[in-house]
Amino acid sequence: MIDAPTFADVRAAADRIRGHAHRTPVLTSRRVDDEVGAQLFFKCENLQRMGAFKFRGAFNALSRFEEEQRRNGVVAYSSGNHAQAIALAGRILGIPATIVMPHDAPASKIAATEGYGATVVRYDRYTEDREAIGAALAAERGLTLIPPYDHPDVIAGQGTATLELLEDVGELDALYLPLGGGGLSSGAALAARALSPSCQVFGVEPEAGDDVRQSIRSGRIVHIPAPSTIADGAQTQHPGEITFPILQRELTDVLTATDDELVDAMRVFAATLKIVVEPTGCLGFAAARRAAPAGKRVGVLISGGNVDLDRFAALIAG
Amino acid sequence: MIDAPTFADVRAAADRIRGHAHRTPVLTSRRVDDEVGAQLFFKCENLQRMGAFKFRGAFNALSRFEEEQRRNGVVAYSSGNHAQAIALAGRILGIPATIVMPHDAPASKIAATEGYGATVVRYDRYTEDREAIGAALAAERGLTLIPPYDHPDVIAGQGTATLELLEDVGELDALYLPLGGGGLSSGAALAARALSPSCQVFGVEPEAGDDVRQSIRSGRIVHIPAPSTIADGAQTQHPGEITFPILQRELTDVLTATDDELVDAMRVFAATLKIVVEPTGCLGFAAARRAAPAGKRVGVLISGGNVDLDRFAALIAG
Repeated sequence: MIDAPTFADVRAAADRIRGHAHRTPVLTSRRVDDEVGAQLFFKCENLQRMGAFKFRGAFNALSRFEEEQRRNGVVAYSSGNHAQAIALAGRILGIPATIVMPHDAPASKIAATEGYGATVVRYDRYTEDREAIGAALAAERGLTLIPPYDHPDVIAGQGTATLELLEDVGELDALYLPLGGGGLSSGAALAARALSPSCQVFGVEPEAGDDVRQSIRSGRIVHIPAPSTIADGAQTQHPGEITFPILQRELTDVLTATDDELVDAMRVFAATLKIVVEPTGCLGFAAARRAAPAGKRVGVLISGGNVDLDRFAALIAG
Repeated sequence: MIDAPTFADVRAAADRIRGHAHRTPVLTSRRVDDEVGAQLFFKCENLQRMGAFKFRGAFNALSRFEEEQRRNGVVAYSSGNHAQAIALAGRILGIPATIVMPHDAPASKIAATEGYGATVVRYDRYTEDREAIGAALAAERGLTLIPPYDHPDVIAGQGTATLELLEDVGELDALYLPLGGGGLSSGAALAARALSPSCQVFGVEPEAGDDVRQSIRSGRIVHIPAPSTIADGAQTQHPGEITFPILQRELTDVLTATDDELVDAMRVFAATLKIVVEPTGCLGFAAARRAAPAGKRVGVLISGGNVDLDRFAALIAG
C-alpha cells in the first residue's frame, strides 16, 4: 500500500519544481464574468512548459529518483501530455525516457515527445493494455514506471497548480477542474482543503467517459470502455487506486461536459481570453459556465493547450 | 505646439491606469528561444482588457478630461483597437464616446465597440478622410477628439506596457515593437531610454506600408497610400507630428515584415505559446525571429489579439 500524498507533499513539490516549471499566469476577463455571472480566475496551465500541467507531476516524480533509477531510466504510458512531460523532465534531469503512446495520439504530441529525446513505443488503444506494456518494459529493462496519475509524487506535483492559484488570488468559493484519472483533481483538492477550506471542488469529466462519477456513485472503482470524446486527455477508463479515495473524500461533486460544450468553451477562450486551449483543457470552464455559483469567486483550471493547429482551426471555425 | 511626452508622463500614466488596465503577463518559451537563438520575453498585450495595448493610452487620455469634456464626450477615429479602447475607457469613466470606423473594419471590432456602448460612425477608408470626419464631429458637437496615436497622453499611456516589461524582467538588449502610427513605439522608447538605456529599440512595419521607415530616411513625415496588408492595425499612412520626432530620435532602426511572415509568426504563437495574436501583433516577433542579436535578452511586444475567429482559423490552418 502506497502512502497517500498530503498537502505537505504538495508544498515540497512546489519547492522542487521552482525554477523549472513556469509559474503560470492567472487571467481574468470582465466580459466572461458578465456572461457567467461570477468572478472567474483562470489558472493557465496551457501556458506551462510543454503546454500542460503534467510537467509539474512528472518533474516532481523524476527529481525524486535514486541514482540507479536515474541511470536506468523512466518508462511512462500516456495519451499525450504526460508523455511530453516525462520526456521533457527526463531531458532536463538527464534521465533516459521511454514512452508508450497510443497509435492515434495527436501527431503534435508524438512529435513533441520524440523532440524531447524520448523513445516512443506505440500501441493500439482499443485492443492492447498500456499498463501491461509499461509494466513489461519496466521489468525487462529495469526502468521505473511513472504512471500518468496514480502516483503520490505525480499527484503532489499536480497540486502545485492550485497551490499557486490560491496563493495568487486568495481563497475561492468554488474550483472547477478537468478530471481524467484524477491526478490533477486530487492534488488540487489537497491544496484547496489546506488553503481555502470552504472552497467547493468540482471535477469535470467528458460526458462520454464519466468513470469517476460512476465510481463515486458506486463507492468503488468502476472501469468503463475507452470513451469516444474530443477530450483526448480525459479518455481514462477508471480512476486510480490512490486518486480514487482522495476524489471520493474531497470532491464536492463530479460534473460532465459534452463535446459541443467543449468546442464552445474553446471558442470563448480564443475569442475573448485570446488563448489556445485543448479540448480537455476546456472541461472546467464548460461546467463553470453552466454551474458557477452566482456572484462568487470561482477558480477554473485550464489543463493544457496541446492541440494540432489544423484541428484547432477546424474546431473554432465552427 | 504640443509638448512632447516624457518618461515622467509614462510614470504618471502607470499610476492612472493601475487597477483599470491588466498588468499583462510576460511569457517565455525555451522552444522559441532555441529556434531564434536568443532569450525572448513576450509582453502579452493581446491579454490586455479589450484585447490590445490601446486601452492604456485611451484610459490615460480620458482620465485627464476636465468636467466639461467628460460631459460632452469623446470622439475617435480608428481602424479597430483604438475604437474599442476609447469605447471601453469611456464606459468606465462615464464619458459618452463616438467612434469613426472604416466600413471594412473587422466585424468583431465593430461589434465590440458598439458592445461597449459607443456610437459608431462609418466611413470609406479608400475615399474619405477619417481625420476630417473626426474634426468635423468634434467641432459640431463639442466633442474632444482623441487621435489613435498622435497625442501625448496616448503615447504616455502606451509607454506603460514597456515600463511594466522592464520592471518585470530587468534590462534588455533589444526590443521589437509593432509600428503603426508610432504611439506604442514612441511610448516604449521613452520607457526603454529611462529604464534600459543601452537597449536597442526596433519598430517593425508591414512591408506594404513602411511610412515610418520612409519618413525617417527622408527626414520628414512621408504620406503613403493606404497599404494593403493583413496587419490592419498598422495600415497607417504617416507617422504623427508628435510621434515622428520621438521615433526619429529614439529608434535604432525600422524593420519590416511581410504578410507571410506575420502568418507564420501567428502559427508559432498558437502552436507553441498557446496564444491568439492578431496579424499586427505579430510584427515584432516576425522581425525578431530574423534579426534578434544572438544570445541576447530580447523583448517582443505583442500588441493585440483581436482577430475574427473564422479569419484566425483560416490563417493558422495554412
